[in-house]
Amino acid sequence: MNFFHFQITHKAGRARTGLLHTPHGPVETPLFMPVGTQGSVKGLMPRDLKEIGSQILLANTYHLLLRPGPERVRALGGLHGFAGWRGPWLTDSGGFQVMSLGHLRRIDEKGVVFQSHLNGDLVELTPERSVAVQEALGSDIAMALDECPPYPSSRAYLEASLERTLRWLERSLKAKTRPDQALFGIAQGGTEADLRRRSTLETIRFDLPGYAIGGLAVGEPKEAMFRMVELSTALLPEEKPRYLMGVGHPEDLVAAMGLGVDLFDCVYPTRTGRFGYALVPEGRLNLKSGRHLEDPRPLEEGCDCYACRTFSRAYLSHLVRSGEMLGAVLLSLHNLRFLHRLTEGAREAIRQGQYGDFARAFAERRFGKEIPPWFREALVAGGHW
Amino acid sequence: MNFFHFQITHKAGRARTGLLHTPHGPVETPLFMPVGTQGSVKGLMPRDLKEIGSQILLANTYHLLLRPGPERVRALGGLHGFAGWRGPWLTDSGGFQVMSLGHLRRIDEKGVVFQSHLNGDLVELTPERSVAVQEALGSDIAMALDECPPYPSSRAYLEASLERTLRWLERSLKAKTRPDQALFGIAQGGTEADLRRRSTLETIRFDLPGYAIGGLAVGEPKEAMFRMVELSTALLPEEKPRYLMGVGHPEDLVAAMGLGVDLFDCVYPTRTGRFGYALVPEGRLNLKSGRHLEDPRPLEEGCDCYACRTFSRAYLSHLVRSGEMLGAVLLSLHNLRFLHRLTEGAREAIRQGQYGDFARAFAERRFGKEIPPWFREALVAGGHW
Repeated sequence: MNFFHFQITHKAGRARTGLLHTPHGPVETPLFMPVGTQGSVKGLMPRDLKEIGSQILLANTYHLLLRPGPERVRALGGLHGFAGWRGPWLTDSGGFQVMSLGHLRRIDEKGVVFQSHLNGDLVELTPERSVAVQEALGSDIAMALDECPPYPSSRAYLEASLERTLRWLERSLKAKTRPDQALFGIAQGGTEADLRRRSTLETIRFDLPGYAIGGLAVGEPKEAMFRMVELSTALLPEEKPRYLMGVGHPEDLVAAMGLGVDLFDCVYPTRTGRFGYALVPEGRLNLKSGRHLEDPRPLEEGCDCYACRTFSRAYLSHLVRSGEMLGAVLLSLHNLRFLHRLTEGAREAIRQGQYGDFARAFAERRFGKEIPPWFREALVAGGHW
Repeated sequence: MNFFHFQITHKAGRARTGLLHTPHGPVETPLFMPVGTQGSVKGLMPRDLKEIGSQILLANTYHLLLRPGPERVRALGGLHGFAGWRGPWLTDSGGFQVMSLGHLRRIDEKGVVFQSHLNGDLVELTPERSVAVQEALGSDIAMALDECPPYPSSRAYLEASLERTLRWLERSLKAKTRPDQALFGIAQGGTEADLRRRSTLETIRFDLPGYAIGGLAVGEPKEAMFRMVELSTALLPEEKPRYLMGVGHPEDLVAAMGLGVDLFDCVYPTRTGRFGYALVPEGRLNLKSGRHLEDPRPLEEGCDCYACRTFSRAYLSHLVRSGEMLGAVLLSLHNLRFLHRLTEGAREAIRQGQYGDFARAFAERRFGKEIPPWFREALVAGGHW
């Protein structure tokens, strides 16, 4: 039985809409996935996420491995039973946090050893262990352990690391036991076109149910990032979902959806919300600033989220400036709804064959007359401009 | 037109149920009022409060006076327009925070001068200014500025301070202009029976729409506190609502409702929730403790709140131990629902003429065989035991 059928429903240039079937229901693509780092999207109840159109949540294997531990989550029914979100879950492999949080102690062919940020224990994460932990967590989609090199890295390092990532992918597949969990592979290669191409081509030889574009949005220029996205989606098989990891800025979503990316995740909307910023078509509103304190308008005219339906900028600014938790909650809710509305709008535009108009209208409000070259080039390459 | 009619619907011993009509709808009593210190019940959306049975919220004049300022709140429609809670609001006078937060600089016949904890400014609060600020905030019920002496205080100080509080009440009434805002007076007198009696009798001579029992739950023994509550409700006019300020422990509510108290407020349920504690019939669960990490049960069997309907103790404990904001949100929600269910149960018991059974069943779970004398004595005095 194929739990993970991906069905493309419409195409417009290189953009497409699809339905990704999972054991816990279908997911409409393109789609942004909110990040529930420790099994909770910070401050938001699952029912609030459902209301704003979240369809699949991401949880971090690194955090749940350390606390509360995968066996505890398994005993309570996996993430679906544990965390109150009954829809699909995606788990990452744990590798990115090990490396980005600076707790890495050793990386070799076998795997990585890191020091727990909670108690200092040395913990080993191998491809096999990452699969086993993710199987205990019970996510619908698991990610194979990869090495995500920092930017910039030498060609020699990028090359060695992408080769190791491929060997780890092979071991991950051998370790896999759950038929109701898909394993996605992650292509690396930094911003070196030939290495990115090699990594992508070698990864798709495994004929996986989905592929991630990894190692981007780690500090490289947007031009380089989108050249890699363009190259990747041109090589990845049409009939499989494509997931651009760690990307959550609205303009990046619009450019990448135009190139045929289907899935995204990022802490950006919730983190920037906790820091007092609201996403709006023009960019961000800084609610910490005193200039909103008498503004009766909602965060965004026309937004249907509870925060916009109920509160003024003045009140939300008061909450943020007073350090009230509800400010962080409501801005996170709005920011996620903003990204969900963005992908909903993109899906509709793709169905209507009008993705170019959609992207142009977005760019006009976001950038005014100064549309950045990388954005235009991505849309040209996607066949929309 | 009388906006504030109080209608007693049932009586059982000295306990009673009632309906307090306000310009923003009726309030069933006895009732606990959640505290929205800065115009927000920490972490909770107004719709969540409505769902769990909140009927009236309290906001702190001290905080809103300093930030965002009463004129800003007025311009946005008062608290009802500003803060998204369209039901009734009660505001305190600001006096308690001035004194309890330790920013008091001077107190004299005219009023108090305090130093803002935000920017160090000296701010004056007089009875007249407190009324004006509360009228700008637009609450349904305002409280007259009083002096709440610390415990213990000398008789001489208690006496001087209760006399001043009476003079301030008279000035507050003269300053009052809004017919759609009720002004409650606050009786003081510490735990000296004769002073408490004098303060209460002098306060009710003003024939106000409601009366508060102030200056209790400030560190005195429970025996002394409930002797004062007993004395107060015996003197206060039957046909007016009685509000016991700053009281929110479940056992205190049960004892005080038995003596005919109608309204309560306290930060306890939300604060203890943010600190990782859940109210349950037996007392409190400490979710920071590791012993709940594998417990699949809800916080409280039979509770109908979203937290209990959706999550296990194991998950909530994981959130609390991980410092996840959602833990604080869900425990606050449950704890408020716990107190609302408690007053709902009390109302039903009063209607059925079975408040004694209700209090006994509560005490059995809360105290086991060791029912504290103050609790039993309050219920005996209330005619329930």
